[in-house]
Amino acid sequence: MSSGRNIYLKMKTLKEAQGVVDQAFQHNKENCGTEMIPSAEAVGRTLAGAVSAAVSSPNFHAAAMDGIAVSAPKTFGANESNPKRLAVGADAIYVNTGHVMPPGTDSVIMIEYVNEIDDKSVEIEAPAFPWQNVRKMGEDIVATELMFPGNHVVTPYCVGALLSGGVFSVSVKKTPKVLIIPTGSELVDWQNTRPADLKPGQVIETNSTVLGRLVESCGGEFVRREIIVDDPAALAKAVMEATAGDDFDMVLLLGGSSAGSEDYSKKTIMDLGEVLVHGVTIMPGKPVIIGKISGKPVFGTPGYPVSAIIVFEQLIRPLICGMLGQSPREPEKIDVIPAKKITSKLGVEEFLRVKLGKVGQRVIAMPLPRGAGSVTTISDADGILRIPNHIEGLNENETAVAELIKPASEIENTVVIVGSHDNTLDVLADLAKTGRKSSLAISSSHVGSMGGLMAVKKGVCHMAGSHLLDENDGSYNLSYIKKHLPGLDIKLVRLVSRDQGLIIAPGNPKQIKGMESLCRDDIRFVNRQRGSGTRILFDYKLKEMGAKPQEIDGYANDEYTHMSVAVAVLSGSADAGLGIYAAAKALGLDFIPVVTEEYDLVIPQEHFESKRIQSVLNIIHSADFRRRIGELGGYHTERTGDVIL
Amino acid sequence: MSSGRNIYLKMKTLKEAQGVVDQAFQHNKENCGTEMIPSAEAVGRTLAGAVSAAVSSPNFHAAAMDGIAVSAPKTFGANESNPKRLAVGADAIYVNTGHVMPPGTDSVIMIEYVNEIDDKSVEIEAPAFPWQNVRKMGEDIVATELMFPGNHVVTPYCVGALLSGGVFSVSVKKTPKVLIIPTGSELVDWQNTRPADLKPGQVIETNSTVLGRLVESCGGEFVRREIIVDDPAALAKAVMEATAGDDFDMVLLLGGSSAGSEDYSKKTIMDLGEVLVHGVTIMPGKPVIIGKISGKPVFGTPGYPVSAIIVFEQLIRPLICGMLGQSPREPEKIDVIPAKKITSKLGVEEFLRVKLGKVGQRVIAMPLPRGAGSVTTISDADGILRIPNHIEGLNENETAVAELIKPASEIENTVVIVGSHDNTLDVLADLAKTGRKSSLAISSSHVGSMGGLMAVKKGVCHMAGSHLLDENDGSYNLSYIKKHLPGLDIKLVRLVSRDQGLIIAPGNPKQIKGMESLCRDDIRFVNRQRGSGTRILFDYKLKEMGAKPQEIDGYANDEYTHMSVAVAVLSGSADAGLGIYAAAKALGLDFIPVVTEEYDLVIPQEHFESKRIQSVLNIIHSADFRRRIGELGGYHTERTGDVIL
Repeated sequence: MSSGRNIYLKMKTLKEAQGVVDQAFQHNKENCGTEMIPSAEAVGRTLAGAVSAAVSSPNFHAAAMDGIAVSAPKTFGANESNPKRLAVGADAIYVNTGHVMPPGTDSVIMIEYVNEIDDKSVEIEAPAFPWQNVRKMGEDIVATELMFPGNHVVTPYCVGALLSGGVFSVSVKKTPKVLIIPTGSELVDWQNTRPADLKPGQVIETNSTVLGRLVESCGGEFVRREIIVDDPAALAKAVMEATAGDDFDMVLLLGGSSAGSEDYSKKTIMDLGEVLVHGVTIMPGKPVIIGKISGKPVFGTPGYPVSAIIVFEQLIRPLICGMLGQSPREPEKIDVIPAKKITSKLGVEEFLRVKLGKVGQRVIAMPLPRGAGSVTTISDADGILRIPNHIEGLNENETAVAELIKPASEIENTVVIVGSHDNTLDVLADLAKTGRKSSLAISSSHVGSMGGLMAVKKGVCHMAGSHLLDENDGSYNLSYIKKHLPGLDIKLVRLVSRDQGLIIAPGNPKQIKGMESLCRDDIRFVNRQRGSGTRILFDYKLKEMGAKPQEIDGYANDEYTHMSVAVAVLSGSADAGLGIYAAAKALGLDFIPVVTEEYDLVIPQEHFESKRIQSVLNIIHSADFRRRIGELGGYHTERTGDVIL
Repeated sequence: MSSGRNIYLKMKTLKEAQGVVDQAFQHNKENCGTEMIPSAEAVGRTLAGAVSAAVSSPNFHAAAMDGIAVSAPKTFGANESNPKRLAVGADAIYVNTGHVMPPGTDSVIMIEYVNEIDDKSVEIEAPAFPWQNVRKMGEDIVATELMFPGNHVVTPYCVGALLSGGVFSVSVKKTPKVLIIPTGSELVDWQNTRPADLKPGQVIETNSTVLGRLVESCGGEFVRREIIVDDPAALAKAVMEATAGDDFDMVLLLGGSSAGSEDYSKKTIMDLGEVLVHGVTIMPGKPVIIGKISGKPVFGTPGYPVSAIIVFEQLIRPLICGMLGQSPREPEKIDVIPAKKITSKLGVEEFLRVKLGKVGQRVIAMPLPRGAGSVTTISDADGILRIPNHIEGLNENETAVAELIKPASEIENTVVIVGSHDNTLDVLADLAKTGRKSSLAISSSHVGSMGGLMAVKKGVCHMAGSHLLDENDGSYNLSYIKKHLPGLDIKLVRLVSRDQGLIIAPGNPKQIKGMESLCRDDIRFVNRQRGSGTRILFDYKLKEMGAKPQEIDGYANDEYTHMSVAVAVLSGSADAGLGIYAAAKALGLDFIPVVTEEYDLVIPQEHFESKRIQSVLNIIHSADFRRRIGELGGYHTERTGDVIL
């Protein structure tokens, strides 16, 4: 049992680690090999050397218009009062665009300026100047001239130039071949598993596919070896085979790069070659290993999916690109404002995944959860905020630079919803993206109803989802808007009415009758976070029945969404939680209705009239939206789309 | 013989034409079909509908650290002075990261905080709080929740999320299939031709490959039919077959879209279906046809390669993207300053191809030739300046917006050389791009030596190539810099000494002896343009031998580069021209030396110290550069790299 504390004897910064890779594999970058392929198939490939034209284009003087080819000097002197007559077939030869200029001619007179007298003669009323309306030989490409330098990446347009220059095949850099070896006894191969058969403790192996596709995205090829369960001998054998021959240019060992009792990557690399780096001060991605065996790069990547991706992007992509004579493409960068204060650890460069949306003139960055085990924190991300080693975080209104994952135009097209979570927002997102007229992205962050109002106040969202009950009059949201958003011009639009109730295990094994049962000693409750409408509703219901929070076991355990409450019940960590019917239904749980409440969208007037928001409102008014919500269950749409305020 | 004048009865603007495509093929966009494929192979594909998770991830509560799993309440009260002892196997269970949390436990204490007393017991000095160091079931993905909306394009990261959510296959939009039919009797298929066999009048068919690869670049597939020579019946048969069944979603007829005697596309489409648009006010690309046959889109694209590409990008790409539920990716745009005044025709939207480079704080746009027949004007381009219908051009210092073809980072990395043309600049470009340490692009524009000095004066280049002879003292460039760039701090670096001489046909059939022979009546000369160093040299030599320009047949015919002079001689349109040995050698021509001259680089001091320029100078000083120049012939490198001023 190792401590995991002092294993990284000499951690490197990212820049240092990148320098190590750069230096250690300079030879690999320069000797990746070349191959001849047809130019027509070379799109995306890198030219191994300069390419010169084999033929000129055009390879003859060509007529550039339909008309008559003439020798310019023979037309000199022609004018309207003194037209010049030319003999067809001798001094004037009919040509179409693209025809070879007949011998002795050097210019073309457009057909509309030619008076056709008879079969044998034509008249012109103006002289031609030499080479008018002629595409000269070599006008586009001259044989032997350098067309593209080495390391040029071939595009479709370049293919046109290559073929035109008579270059039908080109020498390109060979595609780097990467062997990917997933390791770990907890892993199951999706190709041999059905989702329903997945057992607790089993994890679907995804990194090999993700990293393999990333290898392809930078121009490499990958082979995925079958999963090696935690068996040092099998791992050593596989790595030895992979690094011995010429089959592979690089090896990636996935998982086992840390220092747990079943982490064998480091020892394997040390035994067969050398470990150049173990541990880089980045988060996620710290426990990466950079090694070299038989002159080849061998990386040990961490098992958490986001760690593996960050390690790939920062250390492996540049090397594969380098083998192809390229620098990795710089990510697009934009200035953003964090929606909230972000703290970060000193001494570590953090790659914080964020959702982005343009609210007013500012692009707002909403941090996603930080867990490196959650692949959705990067698959849902619009960009990455890099927080350098030497700073402790970012303030709320401090401009920061985000590296974009999605194109900037998509971010321009994003509607930012912050606030309470509801499943109908997912339906809204789907309909927005598949709209006939336009494609909108909806980015929703779940911070509870009060969090949503605060986001509106701070101007960091286009709208907030909210279901805040006023205990005094039973109204929803109105009094909260008045109190917390004074002076702001706000529209309130009804999204849905929805059933809230107790989510309980199927068959109700604990015989829960309703709210009253929650005070029983054998019932463990799971709560929602402070500031959420559901928490406020729960507290109101508690008060109504005269109970106190202390009487509820689990009152302090809180979750951020209805679905996580349902998961807590499904997994048995709680017996009941207050939530919406749709969440219970989705996970096959039972549901005891408690109340029907109003869920509204709070929209500042300044955004309300915008095209994007109006598109969203059009979807909310559509029959399609009501139908899809009906399918979820537990919703009422009689007033859906009504403007309440 | 048609006039080509009034054939476009109702020309459309580009926006109108795009609107026609959008409307006419709405049905095609919505009904392109779907197919199930493995998620692992879905990168780049578009999801046909919303995708929901099949399993939760993790699908169990998992230890997030190596350590002991405990029930939090049993640890309450532990502190340094009162450590708590736990029984191994009962109250404390050893777990590694990723293990299933044992029943009854809800938190993990990291191994480094555990005192191992003996095999049976451990001590802790601090309590655990519930769920610490645990990845809860569903923390990343909750089964049934919507993971991605319809129309989402799958990335490698998304593949990770899909597999983690137990979604092993996905329904995606079918790949639109495009049949491409090249037409034209002048065309030859490169697959059946050797470059050396190409005859005058024959043109290598390139558009089908270029457009095919462009189809792929927006997510479609293409089939290329063999070339149809100008035969209306064969064309009609091919189009009928292609539009009849379900094999293809779109047909592109290449060439023959204009109204020449051999242009059959329009009639073919009219006979089989309808022509929606013929003629769009864009340049290049005007004679495009948008048609519909059996409900399918059929485009007639112009035969000139740049016209075909512009038509594809503006009209066909959006439709293919639309079939995939996507908008075409917006090109990156940047502000640029034209290096010279650009005039453009009113009533036509021009797509002017430009080279771009950042000189000082401004990005300078240098227009490339406008000929739609020259594919290199787009394969060499860094960006496109769109000049709208209603304006007559752009002024020299007027900011304009360029749509980028290459990434902005590459433009940042470009060294802009404007001035005299020399073949060693190509060698420099190749070595810059393939450099070990860095990758630089070199953009060189050929405007003659004086044009280069003017570009330096205007601040639109990093350096200028120049070989301006001072007749009075036989020096090069120095007196011109003094006269034309007064007050500017200039460095002058010797690039090469080079032989200039008469380029003549192989075997010297006209028995040319030297400069004197050019006055003969039977010798046709080809000159260089005004302001070029070679023109100045030629005028000097004429004066030296007492001859006058009028005595030289062809003195007024000028070309812009040494290679075009050589081409004029090779094609027989001239008998002799003054140029460099390398150009004669490249095309297998003979050469009569006239003089050895100095070719220098004129570099403003403000750029001289910059990293990019220093990299260029390092290449100039390298042995590799001298060796490559030696291979060209006609150059002397004794003083190469010397700073003259």
